[in-house]
Amino acid sequence: MSAELICVGTELLLGDILNTNAQYIAQELARLGIPHFYQSVVGDNPDRLKQVIQTAIDRSNLLLFTGGLGPTPDDLTLATIAEFFNTELEERQEIIDDIQQKFTQRGRTMSPSNRKQALLPRGAEILPNPIGSAPGIIWQPRPDVTILTFPGVPAEMRRMWHQTAVPYLRRQGWGKELFYSRLLKFWGIPESDLAEKVSHLLNSVNPTVAPYANYGEVKLRVSARAMSETEAQELINPVAKEIQEIAGLHYYGGDSDTLASVAGQLLQTRGETLAVAESCTGGSLGKALTEIPGSSTYFWGGVIAYDNRIKEQLLGVSREDLATYGAVSATVAKQMASGVRDRCRTDWGIGITGIAGPGGGTPEKPVGLVYIGLASPDGTVESFEYRLGDTRGRDWVRRVSVSHALDRLRRRLRG
Amino acid sequence: MSAELICVGTELLLGDILNTNAQYIAQELARLGIPHFYQSVVGDNPDRLKQVIQTAIDRSNLLLFTGGLGPTPDDLTLATIAEFFNTELEERQEIIDDIQQKFTQRGRTMSPSNRKQALLPRGAEILPNPIGSAPGIIWQPRPDVTILTFPGVPAEMRRMWHQTAVPYLRRQGWGKELFYSRLLKFWGIPESDLAEKVSHLLNSVNPTVAPYANYGEVKLRVSARAMSETEAQELINPVAKEIQEIAGLHYYGGDSDTLASVAGQLLQTRGETLAVAESCTGGSLGKALTEIPGSSTYFWGGVIAYDNRIKEQLLGVSREDLATYGAVSATVAKQMASGVRDRCRTDWGIGITGIAGPGGGTPEKPVGLVYIGLASPDGTVESFEYRLGDTRGRDWVRRVSVSHALDRLRRRLRG
Repeated sequence: MSAELICVGTELLLGDILNTNAQYIAQELARLGIPHFYQSVVGDNPDRLKQVIQTAIDRSNLLLFTGGLGPTPDDLTLATIAEFFNTELEERQEIIDDIQQKFTQRGRTMSPSNRKQALLPRGAEILPNPIGSAPGIIWQPRPDVTILTFPGVPAEMRRMWHQTAVPYLRRQGWGKELFYSRLLKFWGIPESDLAEKVSHLLNSVNPTVAPYANYGEVKLRVSARAMSETEAQELINPVAKEIQEIAGLHYYGGDSDTLASVAGQLLQTRGETLAVAESCTGGSLGKALTEIPGSSTYFWGGVIAYDNRIKEQLLGVSREDLATYGAVSATVAKQMASGVRDRCRTDWGIGITGIAGPGGGTPEKPVGLVYIGLASPDGTVESFEYRLGDTRGRDWVRRVSVSHALDRLRRRLRG
Repeated sequence: MSAELICVGTELLLGDILNTNAQYIAQELARLGIPHFYQSVVGDNPDRLKQVIQTAIDRSNLLLFTGGLGPTPDDLTLATIAEFFNTELEERQEIIDDIQQKFTQRGRTMSPSNRKQALLPRGAEILPNPIGSAPGIIWQPRPDVTILTFPGVPAEMRRMWHQTAVPYLRRQGWGKELFYSRLLKFWGIPESDLAEKVSHLLNSVNPTVAPYANYGEVKLRVSARAMSETEAQELINPVAKEIQEIAGLHYYGGDSDTLASVAGQLLQTRGETLAVAESCTGGSLGKALTEIPGSSTYFWGGVIAYDNRIKEQLLGVSREDLATYGAVSATVAKQMASGVRDRCRTDWGIGITGIAGPGGGTPEKPVGLVYIGLASPDGTVESFEYRLGDTRGRDWVRRVSVSHALDRLRRRLRG
């Protein structure tokens, strides 16, 4: 018994999109302990898709399809699967009703081409799509073949996977032994340093411990295989605890935690509030903070001070200091932090100013130089200097600056 | 004549890594005009890999492999390919010399396991790896089959691709006919509506026209096959022009254009400036605008007015109106737009206020209700209402709100 993934879409063969769906489903199959030995990508072409289906049913019995469920003529995954198994398509009124309702909610009218999305192979169950107009199917065209289809849009596929596919697969007896993992997240320590500190754990078998890193963030994935989640957690807990003790303040959270959510939770617990003043990050710090539902209880807002006139007019940064020290300086970062705190009347204020690049660097102030100011409720204002370099690009400098700012706040709130 | 990609690695089947190599090679094959209809992923397992090779040589004649060239026992791509074609492996002294030299340079000693990387099928050419220890091969085991192998490490694969594989493929007569494509981008029209308007073009053969959509944005890819880029452009131009005429103002740009870059360019041309006031988007609009290097010439900054106190204190929104109409209202959106324009002393001002969810909705003001205010240099202030629904989540509402705001500005600048 094994699963095979078939991703349909000419855009994948042209390299227009990255196949993140394949990684997601692979992780999920691994988590559920469902064996998975092959993946295929094929274009929106019925003959080639049929050939891929033929190869797949000769070696796998759970076929997972992504893509090709849309309303346009090149979306032909369902029609091709139905034809392969000599089954007619039939129109399902409940799907038309569902699409109609979604369109009405959005003040749009359903176009005739959407009717095509209501055509399902006779005998197939609907795999509901709570977000978009394209439903999937769950279908056993033969006793030894189970087919599940998903749209190519990642958000829709993931919701459908969790809401309907996983419970269905469990009912069918797949995924009994569970693969459960916990992600531990760190900021302020390089991957190699952390890996050395926990090297005695990296060869552990159950749970396993594996390091990852991206955008300056280091993660350790602790994974256990067990018959129940409780049992898996009991295997993971002591190892996670040991790692946290070794890492100290560098450890900031687990799983779905972000630096913004952790700093936010600390503010909320204290009943304190925050405002931000952003130059080179242009709103990215505000965006990160407000990604969290409910963040309005502690995050009030702030100023995007991209131009120096805004730094003066809306934050009260001294024109003289701007001229003397430059916009990218510890002095200005501190004035931005205290200025935004005072004008927004919050407890904490953060200021970020830096050179994101690619242009704007000088020998004394190179691309990647960033200052972060942090104004505290007790009236103190600190500044921190970072030299992030110019090799990894504008987006990287901006993202990492936001993380450093949130991490500084987090450490002060925990200290 | 067509190419097929075979990615080897159990880590891909476990979802531990994202298959960026597949996208890269797909883009490159498209650029070179080499037809490419299938991709496969298979684990480090000789029997399954042989099965995949069998399927591939029945339908393709250029087989590109990534992964499984390392020194560890699970790296068996070359040994399996050789066995499949009944060919012996032989040790190549020049590879051992090369690895030895690289190790010496890095102050390391070559381990016995690295000798394995010098074992190549008899008759195969070396595909040199200038970065790492694992070379690839170029091999014609049969007159109708050409095999190229690459390591899984993206940086090594890319260098080897450009340095040796592309020149080789061109010498063999591949990639003479070029495949060139242009992306046309639209906002404000649903995919199905646009597809219907251009339906007479969707079956066109050279160039082809294919629709895509994500996050409310619709794209048409116009792709032509020709002997030169000029010739390809001549095939694409009339079709692109026809589509742009049909779409009118819904068409906003091509290829690397974004709504933020297009609106920014229009501002820059006019020598006008912009400030933004963001509530539910929390800085996302500022972030989108400042993603573009050089945006400081027209984007000055603004206010993140997440809390109503900030709307009053920093934007001068009327407390009475906040109480009467609510923060999510056309009135407040307009006051935010004109308030930020006045206080930042820019030509244009945008205000965004809405309910991103998941909480905070009421029957009259449901999740997904968003108002956008637009204050113009002539003193007029408009507002626009959007009902984006609650099914696609907070992130979607925020992203689409930012795009709507930029699109409104763009239309006014073009109108």
